[in-house]
Amino acid sequence: MRSRITRRVQSRDLSNFCIRVFQKLGVSKKDAQITADVLVASDLRGIESHGVAHLQWYVNDLRAGLITARPRERIIVETKTTTTIDADAGLGPPVSYRAMKRAIKKAIAVGSGFVSVRNSNHYGIAGYYAMMALRHNCIGFSMTNGHPVVVPTFGSSAMLSTNPIAIAIPAGQDIPFVLDMATSTVALGKLEIAERMKKSIPVGWAVDERGHAMQDPHRALKKIRKREGGLLPLGGAGEKLRGYKGYGLALWGDIFSGILSGAAYSTHTYPKDKEGKLLPANIGHFFGVWRIDAFRPIREFKKAVDDLYGLLRGSPKSSGARRIYIPGEKEHEATMRNRRDGLFLNSKVVEELQRIAEDLKIDFELF
Amino acid sequence: MRSRITRRVQSRDLSNFCIRVFQKLGVSKKDAQITADVLVASDLRGIESHGVAHLQWYVNDLRAGLITARPRERIIVETKTTTTIDADAGLGPPVSYRAMKRAIKKAIAVGSGFVSVRNSNHYGIAGYYAMMALRHNCIGFSMTNGHPVVVPTFGSSAMLSTNPIAIAIPAGQDIPFVLDMATSTVALGKLEIAERMKKSIPVGWAVDERGHAMQDPHRALKKIRKREGGLLPLGGAGEKLRGYKGYGLALWGDIFSGILSGAAYSTHTYPKDKEGKLLPANIGHFFGVWRIDAFRPIREFKKAVDDLYGLLRGSPKSSGARRIYIPGEKEHEATMRNRRDGLFLNSKVVEELQRIAEDLKIDFELF
Repeated sequence: MRSRITRRVQSRDLSNFCIRVFQKLGVSKKDAQITADVLVASDLRGIESHGVAHLQWYVNDLRAGLITARPRERIIVETKTTTTIDADAGLGPPVSYRAMKRAIKKAIAVGSGFVSVRNSNHYGIAGYYAMMALRHNCIGFSMTNGHPVVVPTFGSSAMLSTNPIAIAIPAGQDIPFVLDMATSTVALGKLEIAERMKKSIPVGWAVDERGHAMQDPHRALKKIRKREGGLLPLGGAGEKLRGYKGYGLALWGDIFSGILSGAAYSTHTYPKDKEGKLLPANIGHFFGVWRIDAFRPIREFKKAVDDLYGLLRGSPKSSGARRIYIPGEKEHEATMRNRRDGLFLNSKVVEELQRIAEDLKIDFELF
Repeated sequence: MRSRITRRVQSRDLSNFCIRVFQKLGVSKKDAQITADVLVASDLRGIESHGVAHLQWYVNDLRAGLITARPRERIIVETKTTTTIDADAGLGPPVSYRAMKRAIKKAIAVGSGFVSVRNSNHYGIAGYYAMMALRHNCIGFSMTNGHPVVVPTFGSSAMLSTNPIAIAIPAGQDIPFVLDMATSTVALGKLEIAERMKKSIPVGWAVDERGHAMQDPHRALKKIRKREGGLLPLGGAGEKLRGYKGYGLALWGDIFSGILSGAAYSTHTYPKDKEGKLLPANIGHFFGVWRIDAFRPIREFKKAVDDLYGLLRGSPKSSGARRIYIPGEKEHEATMRNRRDGLFLNSKVVEELQRIAEDLKIDFELF
């Protein structure tokens, strides 16, 4: 499913390039570093749809003033276990990083901590924040909302974002569990990949404005961007394969991310003025941390997790299958490989980065 | 999908019958009341697979001494926001009710509260406990593990329970959001219903020991009970429709319910001795509560939830569809209807209840 490979780049070089881009656009060094790290982590994990391929978006929104380069974050509500933060229309990753740090601090102090964020922007991969909890022997949780691209069950217009859920749980000797999933069957990026590769998409991914399956990714993307039809929730259309469960999970995500925080939700996340001009977005996020030894001694917990993974991996395979994976295992292996060999960027992304460099008069010495 | 209807019964009468059954088996009045309420609530919500149709199981396990009638629950770990309880092999519902009460109390005090339970038994519908938070203007969350009946992605032997996730969120004027979902495409009960109705089941529900789809529910049930094959996680087999997401959710459930609490997990939940005789189960549960105004004023929150539901309901329908539902809406309507008209019990369940009454020498005056 990988698009045409052209150039290999070291993740550190790519990260430094992104940092220079953000700094040039007025972002503080620290916030530039966090945002670059989140984007490059996505590419390292093999989730190309959420990595530097998105840099152009961030650049556009910063230049248009839709994203504030130097936001003044404010605490709206605070309790022993919860905080609500207003991100002042800044970049998603820095406020999310700080929100997660805050949730971790609370969990260390009192067993669990939760932070909701309003007035924010696209935060990259949900899993990045959940994984921040791992080194503290904590379990991390993260959700966000975003562009409406998913139809509700029995609906035919995109009303919800792909509202991802991410959970990260440490193991002992084994790799951590990292579930980082869109609550739709697939994220929009998978249709873009199919379009680039001129492949059809399976029934169960997207429907048109009458609710009929779309299998041409080009047509599907065009329709979805106009909210005529949309991506299907996990489980597909209707009730036969329980698509209402994916819809329920997406709606949970919108309520926790959009409503609990006081952000926008559903079709309101990317508002426009009367002339159709984009106004600043109002994306919401939700972060959670549980301290493991607030339930059970950490050593016992980790031993049981390792044992569980052993049971799963050693269990009988379906015919033709070679391995049973732990959630996050493929991404873990991709990270090891990409750190060692460098990241492969496709030609379209390289061209975009070059154009950004030219526009901002920044050296482009990645290769 | 309803099986043959025979008799109508008032929920209060059915509940009183269950209370007498549990008391006769040595369960305290209070615990009998809680357990009866959980079972009847399931029937009221139209989830017949988890209601009094299960009474025989509870009776069998109490009589066999596999479930302790008068357990002595113990607190294993406690922090400001968390508790771990050992249920002493008692009935699932009473300890779960108390665990949820405890989580609510913590959330009221400090913003959020979480309780894990080990050494427990089947707790009925996950949604019951999540919904307990609603009247406190809190969000409720509940998970459990159970019998291994679900295959991991690429696996062909049942390694995980249908590990449900339940979340209940209050609205303002509108009905509460109650997502109560097995993380498999369907729960085992749906195969039993298809078997009774002599209907085939769709591809995406269950696979055999080679990983091939099973469409005959009778064969599927026989195989799954031997752990030759199993139910498929939400999203189906393999990766095409993202069955690994359902698998990831199921595994999350097993870690939170089984491991965080110190209960059993995967294939260990219902252990047997060397002669193949059943030993007491060691099921785990996880309960969570977030206080809404620890994030945002309750009035604002509820207004936005009502508005979101209005947007969803008013959005375009796919061709042939008449309504877009909020998770829990069908169950809410079933409850209203069943409270008014009485519950319809199928002949098999009525016969079971009669047999229980005869065995225990209890009056059976339901109709």
